[in-house]
Amino acid sequence: MRIEVYFTPLAVAPGEFAGRSVAVVDLLRASTSIAVALAAGAKEVLPAGTVEEALRVAQNLERDQVVLAGERKSVRIEGFALGNSPREFTPEAVGGKTVVLTTTNGTQALLAAQGAREVVVAGAVNFSAVVQRARAALEATGELVVLCSGHERQFAIEDAFAAGRLAKVLLPEGGLRRVALNDAALASLEIARHFGEQWLRALRASRHGQELMALGFADDLRVCATQDSHPVLPVYADRRITAHRPAPEG
Amino acid sequence: MRIEVYFTPLAVAPGEFAGRSVAVVDLLRASTSIAVALAAGAKEVLPAGTVEEALRVAQNLERDQVVLAGERKSVRIEGFALGNSPREFTPEAVGGKTVVLTTTNGTQALLAAQGAREVVVAGAVNFSAVVQRARAALEATGELVVLCSGHERQFAIEDAFAAGRLAKVLLPEGGLRRVALNDAALASLEIARHFGEQWLRALRASRHGQELMALGFADDLRVCATQDSHPVLPVYADRRITAHRPAPEG
Repeated sequence: MRIEVYFTPLAVAPGEFAGRSVAVVDLLRASTSIAVALAAGAKEVLPAGTVEEALRVAQNLERDQVVLAGERKSVRIEGFALGNSPREFTPEAVGGKTVVLTTTNGTQALLAAQGAREVVVAGAVNFSAVVQRARAALEATGELVVLCSGHERQFAIEDAFAAGRLAKVLLPEGGLRRVALNDAALASLEIARHFGEQWLRALRASRHGQELMALGFADDLRVCATQDSHPVLPVYADRRITAHRPAPEG
Repeated sequence: MRIEVYFTPLAVAPGEFAGRSVAVVDLLRASTSIAVALAAGAKEVLPAGTVEEALRVAQNLERDQVVLAGERKSVRIEGFALGNSPREFTPEAVGGKTVVLTTTNGTQALLAAQGAREVVVAGAVNFSAVVQRARAALEATGELVVLCSGHERQFAIEDAFAAGRLAKVLLPEGGLRRVALNDAALASLEIARHFGEQWLRALRASRHGQELMALGFADDLRVCATQDSHPVLPVYADRRITAHRPAPEG
């Protein structure tokens, strides 16, 4: 059994994840916004790498069926209906709609994960749903990749914390002896140990969290830190993210 | 006062380190080999990004004055006199010579650090010399960058451990409250806490360390883990690394 963590998508080679299951993490805030949007009844979320691509994708859809969302430097893109604050993705705003989303970090990680066996979007808000699916992937393939988005191409401690929490929960009894971890997974476990189960503490300790607080998004941090508040499983396939509500256990 | 750690050189933009002091870390093994070579009396070490560049640089020097050294996939490059094992850099092999060195990780980090105010090469073998110089840099500029080489473009826990040990020693009394740390520096401190002062434990826990042991380089890990065994300060400037022995304290 093998769990590998990547702290950023920068060094992911094309095809590197073929046959493997990947959990993409961007706690602040794309993972959270995607889960919240799907829980609010959005039909799908289409990640776009650039503003231009988002506009192009949106133009090919019925105007009243699509919502443009995204940020650059944490702030809503001019002309877009929504930014990247999870609090914006209400049933009124996105219910039944296709959300086209472009963000600085999270959508880049999703694009890097293309070609994997399965890609799920992991946040605190849907943590248990992701754990359940990741456990199934580990049983099926013996492997799991956790791909952190990072922040502006650098290591982000909040994503590493999430990776560490995932790894910790997934470790079999007997722990480290029975599982192969790469160096980033080992480090993630230490970061998870440091912050314990306190998502909000990790978010507030991070540079990205501090930047968001300075921009007036402190409430976003609380939303992003609320475990299992939005128990949907966003699955990314064929360039679109749709909700797979987890089957009941047992 | 600000300490920033980078886990790999991948996302370093040109000019990003202008005016800042950088400690480059590649415990396994370039940092160690460079310090050992200079302690053994090598005149200088010239890092080269590629095998071709190393050959080109060497051709411009007197044949009896130059030693070609380096590895790919941890093994000596064919036709080169030395690999990248610190045990090869003896006074007999390198005394008075120019060493042209190309390695998978460490030389890439050195090249990424070009343009900084000062670049020093940091290992366990010269830890205290680096600490002394880093403290002076912090006093002079208020900033320090620790640039980890990583392993094959990915996070390497042994380099992060070294970064954490450096950061920990350099924190002023009063600790975290008086210093700005980026997320990677925060994580490094946790990794340093985990392994304590046991360099060898960190090296053996790392994927790179395990690969080297499997290749028969277990003795290299012991050399790389011996703190202050080679108290030289390698300084990289104008594309060459030379020894600056630290001035006596006080």
